Amino acid sequence: MERSDRTLIIIGGHEDRSNNKVILGEVARRVGSGKLVVTTVAMANGTEQLFDTYERAFRSLGVKHLYNLDISERAEATVPSKVKIMDDAAGVFFTGGDQIKITSQLGDTPIFQRIREIYDDGGVIAGTSAGAAVMSETMLVEGGEEKSHVIGGSVRMAPGLGLIDGVIIDQHFMERGRFGRLIGAVAQNPKNLGIGIDEQTAIVVERGNGFYVLGSGGVYVIDGTEVTYSNVAEEEPHKTISIYNVRMHMLSQGDRFDLLNRQPRQMKGRAAEKLPEKEEEQTAQHA
Amino acid sequence: MERSDRTLIIIGGHEDRSNNKVILGEVARRVGSGKLVVTTVAMANGTEQLFDTYERAFRSLGVKHLYNLDISERAEATVPSKVKIMDDAAGVFFTGGDQIKITSQLGDTPIFQRIREIYDDGGVIAGTSAGAAVMSETMLVEGGEEKSHVIGGSVRMAPGLGLIDGVIIDQHFMERGRFGRLIGAVAQNPKNLGIGIDEQTAIVVERGNGFYVLGSGGVYVIDGTEVTYSNVAEEEPHKTISIYNVRMHMLSQGDRFDLLNRQPRQMKGRAAEKLPEKEEEQTAQHA
Repeated sequence: MERSDRTLIIIGGHEDRSNNKVILGEVARRVGSGKLVVTTVAMANGTEQLFDTYERAFRSLGVKHLYNLDISERAEATVPSKVKIMDDAAGVFFTGGDQIKITSQLGDTPIFQRIREIYDDGGVIAGTSAGAAVMSETMLVEGGEEKSHVIGGSVRMAPGLGLIDGVIIDQHFMERGRFGRLIGAVAQNPKNLGIGIDEQTAIVVERGNGFYVLGSGGVYVIDGTEVTYSNVAEEEPHKTISIYNVRMHMLSQGDRFDLLNRQPRQMKGRAAEKLPEKEEEQTAQHA
Repeated sequence: MERSDRTLIIIGGHEDRSNNKVILGEVARRVGSGKLVVTTVAMANGTEQLFDTYERAFRSLGVKHLYNLDISERAEATVPSKVKIMDDAAGVFFTGGDQIKITSQLGDTPIFQRIREIYDDGGVIAGTSAGAAVMSETMLVEGGEEKSHVIGGSVRMAPGLGLIDGVIIDQHFMERGRFGRLIGAVAQNPKNLGIGIDEQTAIVVERGNGFYVLGSGGVYVIDGTEVTYSNVAEEEPHKTISIYNVRMHMLSQGDRFDLLNRQPRQMKGRAAEKLPEKEEEQTAQHA
């Protein structure tokens, strides 16, 4: 299978790893006969079992060249044997864990430089949960679940890997009640589009200018372009935010979103057919 | 204090009952020297303790004429001694519990007729939690928390008391992750405006044509008027819904919303001053 143009597969967590594997199947399809590096850098412990789980999943999906990049401290990200794992990779998959471990251990290292090159050369960079959060320039780290955002905020944010511009990603979206914190992040700077991704759901971002939805849950796009008023700059830290005229799209599999003009549309015809919606289709592709 | 024009005070649950009591204070202020009936019809057990709690709260806020309407089966709603409790009431307060108990025991009874008259005569009808849900024509009963809505839905809906038209209320909104179910309800019929109310937060609806926000949390208004596409009528019950171009406003205390033209605005000048924001102001009013 040919390598497609540069792609991000950003997964809201808990993607299926043992049944129909729609989302991991998309990663496998895009890696094709190339090399896939699964990195467990986000995890402090249990990295071997986690890699085993993904190895079984990806091998069953036909991925033949599979490697684990396990980095437990930042110094390792410059060790030649570790850096060499990235050679000629067609794809990189970030597992879940702690997003700060990913950015603090890989940010501005030779390994991150390789990841950036793999992406720019037309590879696929995928990540689930913490691995999804790190894709944007600014990432949400913790706090603010199941409540409305207050001006002073209780949500920790940090700089992400910046593989996609102009968006803020949130994952485990409906499952963890994160609507309030994402709208809070958009209110702080409406140049960023908020994208909330449910579990078992992913967005597949092609060439950085649009995405389509894969999986069983929803994707919420929060667009602050037309906001006419918000109180987020007021000096009342405990006050709940106000924000008028937010545009929102709720998307699911079969929907596309154009990031350049911020418009959703349905996938039809050939584009829709390309969706690996069923177990049988995927098995057929990789058998 | 004069009785104001007909008012609904719709509370997202867990309003403060022992400290600053901003929301209950608004009920008390509007009832003034009139009679307030607290009805615990939504509860199966513990109605006396619950009434005691509200009695203490309302008495401390200066309400002098306070009665409990406890209905444990529908037949009681026609008993003259029970109906008589409603005589000359200036306000009715519905406690939390089970919203189906409220509608099944009071719907189309002489007591409900009295409640309707009290409202139409310029009284105040307030309700918290289950007591908030029953205000609209269609009420959300259960299900659909912390997940995105699917076409076939798992949210039970039922006919409410219909004191306010054209809206669907949801309560404990961010706290219980109910965004998905409310947007699902709006997608099914965008003529209804979705209004999600956080705990410790209320909307005060004046003459049925607008409201302002009271309390510490947020109020989310979901407007489907401009929706360009949704898949809710498709015959795929397990598919997650899609809906494009929803307009959303997140409001907090200090904001007003006009229900006729569906526009938010900030309260300023005299209107804002009327807000009983501080304990001191309320105590002064009722001392």
